[in-house]
Amino acid sequence: MPTINRQVRLAARPSGLPTASDWELTTETVPAPGPGQFVVAVSHLSVDPAMRGWMNAGASYIPPVEIGAVMRAGAIGQVTVSEHPGFAAGDWVYGAFGVQEYAISDGAGVLTLDTALAPPTTYLGALGMTGLTAYFALLDVGKIRAGETVVVSAAAGAVGSVAGQIAKLKGCRAIGIAGGAEKCRALVQDLGFDAAIDYKSGNLRRALRELAPGGVDVYLDNVGGDVLDAVLTRLARGARVIISGAVSQYNADQVRGPANYLMLLVARASMTGMVVFDYADRFPQATAELARWYRDGQITSREHVVHGGIGDFPDTLLRLFAGENTGKLILALDRG
Amino acid sequence: MPTINRQVRLAARPSGLPTASDWELTTETVPAPGPGQFVVAVSHLSVDPAMRGWMNAGASYIPPVEIGAVMRAGAIGQVTVSEHPGFAAGDWVYGAFGVQEYAISDGAGVLTLDTALAPPTTYLGALGMTGLTAYFALLDVGKIRAGETVVVSAAAGAVGSVAGQIAKLKGCRAIGIAGGAEKCRALVQDLGFDAAIDYKSGNLRRALRELAPGGVDVYLDNVGGDVLDAVLTRLARGARVIISGAVSQYNADQVRGPANYLMLLVARASMTGMVVFDYADRFPQATAELARWYRDGQITSREHVVHGGIGDFPDTLLRLFAGENTGKLILALDRG
Repeated sequence: MPTINRQVRLAARPSGLPTASDWELTTETVPAPGPGQFVVAVSHLSVDPAMRGWMNAGASYIPPVEIGAVMRAGAIGQVTVSEHPGFAAGDWVYGAFGVQEYAISDGAGVLTLDTALAPPTTYLGALGMTGLTAYFALLDVGKIRAGETVVVSAAAGAVGSVAGQIAKLKGCRAIGIAGGAEKCRALVQDLGFDAAIDYKSGNLRRALRELAPGGVDVYLDNVGGDVLDAVLTRLARGARVIISGAVSQYNADQVRGPANYLMLLVARASMTGMVVFDYADRFPQATAELARWYRDGQITSREHVVHGGIGDFPDTLLRLFAGENTGKLILALDRG
Repeated sequence: MPTINRQVRLAARPSGLPTASDWELTTETVPAPGPGQFVVAVSHLSVDPAMRGWMNAGASYIPPVEIGAVMRAGAIGQVTVSEHPGFAAGDWVYGAFGVQEYAISDGAGVLTLDTALAPPTTYLGALGMTGLTAYFALLDVGKIRAGETVVVSAAAGAVGSVAGQIAKLKGCRAIGIAGGAEKCRALVQDLGFDAAIDYKSGNLRRALRELAPGGVDVYLDNVGGDVLDAVLTRLARGARVIISGAVSQYNADQVRGPANYLMLLVARASMTGMVVFDYADRFPQATAELARWYRDGQITSREHVVHGGIGDFPDTLLRLFAGENTGKLILALDRG
């Protein structure tokens, strides 16, 4: 009895926000795994801002998703059948399985999850690429030091919510920028940020002046646009700005550069791009450290889980750009 | 018999290019030096793009010139009278003497020049702040390594013309960007750049693709605007962009940020602001090294000397923004 695999494929390259016509739903049967292969029943899809960039043509930090291909996605699931010595039926695994119900894999880039330590979805959150991005961004690129002021944008988002917690446990002052009072409340009360700024209400530059009177030492930017420009005016001498993404710009036809970039000169500051995949050889060590912090209660993982079928992926992606999530946005696949 | 000192003062903060009404010519008598002081007869004024920034209100990397104050300028001259044990009449000196014919000084920040090694004007060029800026920008911030491709904008200008030569003597490939065929010829034939691109003719991005097929490892930016945006698209993995100035933007009411800044993410590159004054404690060592290179013929100093009175300063400054100079622009004061 063949297994039916429903998939979401990229049908066209969007202009601005993706619409229904940019996607195609297809159905295939899952082949039996050959030697060295196994089949994964995908249970949860990672829904990331970076996905919008992968839909564009042209070279970026990874190749674009081809038209007609299954949409790229990090995902977790359980092995159903295995002809691979390293993976057994029932194993929980993480990999770039794509937006589909089943994936066949040879194990390359696939991690086995310790579900005794944390529930599977946490491996899309604090113990997954999300947590690793925050980890390497602040510790390797930002080189945060105790006593410094660390500002994080999209702070209620997947990476930001972990980043603020890492800043705190390293002895920094953590200030989050997020949209909406409830997100700001959660940052301070649930995640331990020292302060949060609602960029939708009031003057961001003034708030930064009040909350970081000595200036911003490290800024993790995931949004670009006006927020980046505002923080640039408040950099401390020798500040490090880490460019990890630019969610405000991904759907723009014309990216707007930071008009205040000359503040890098005034502050003798740096702005550096980082891509988490570059640190792959250090994932095991970093994941172990994140897991220790998680187990000891020093960081918590916020996951925003939406339940639906594979066909709900396009709408779930749009939620991200509407800023509806607090924590890591995940689509949990309910099988009908 | 009192000495008459003609001065150029800032009368108003310009919008765009400075005009005659932004300046005021004043006359004072030079006081006799008190104990620990000396008088300098200014012979040559350094004319720098950064001067335009100093004319604006608001905090920058150094405080603005106040309205009514003598315009700030680096300058060289000879001591006429001294009550300071470290300086004697006839000494050639460099200091921030301002746009005036005579300055009184207590010696703070004043350097005595070795005119046996090089003519005095060279201490406004390769052996002055100009050479030091290129030196620290490439060696400390850019960390250039033999075999890398180094691109310099405003390459026929003061800093750029030295920077390309330092890149060459460190074993790098040096590519200059300048405006006009004659400047480009001089970069390659007189200063030893490997190649030069005339940004006024043809497609800068295409030229970079051809001349730097492996990408740009280090880019020293003095101009901003379209040139910065073009180079950002051609960065090699791990590239370092050094922001040393932004001559294309100094007269703009609204600075235009680099629209291609997300190429920092694609290339895992950094963009860092640098100000030469921060390296003051290492000036002696760096100047000694530059002097050695100069004496050994490894670098030459290009100076573009304009002769005139102190009242010619405003027009000379405008020449800079019209890109009329090749090498360091200097106003040599003829005394009537």
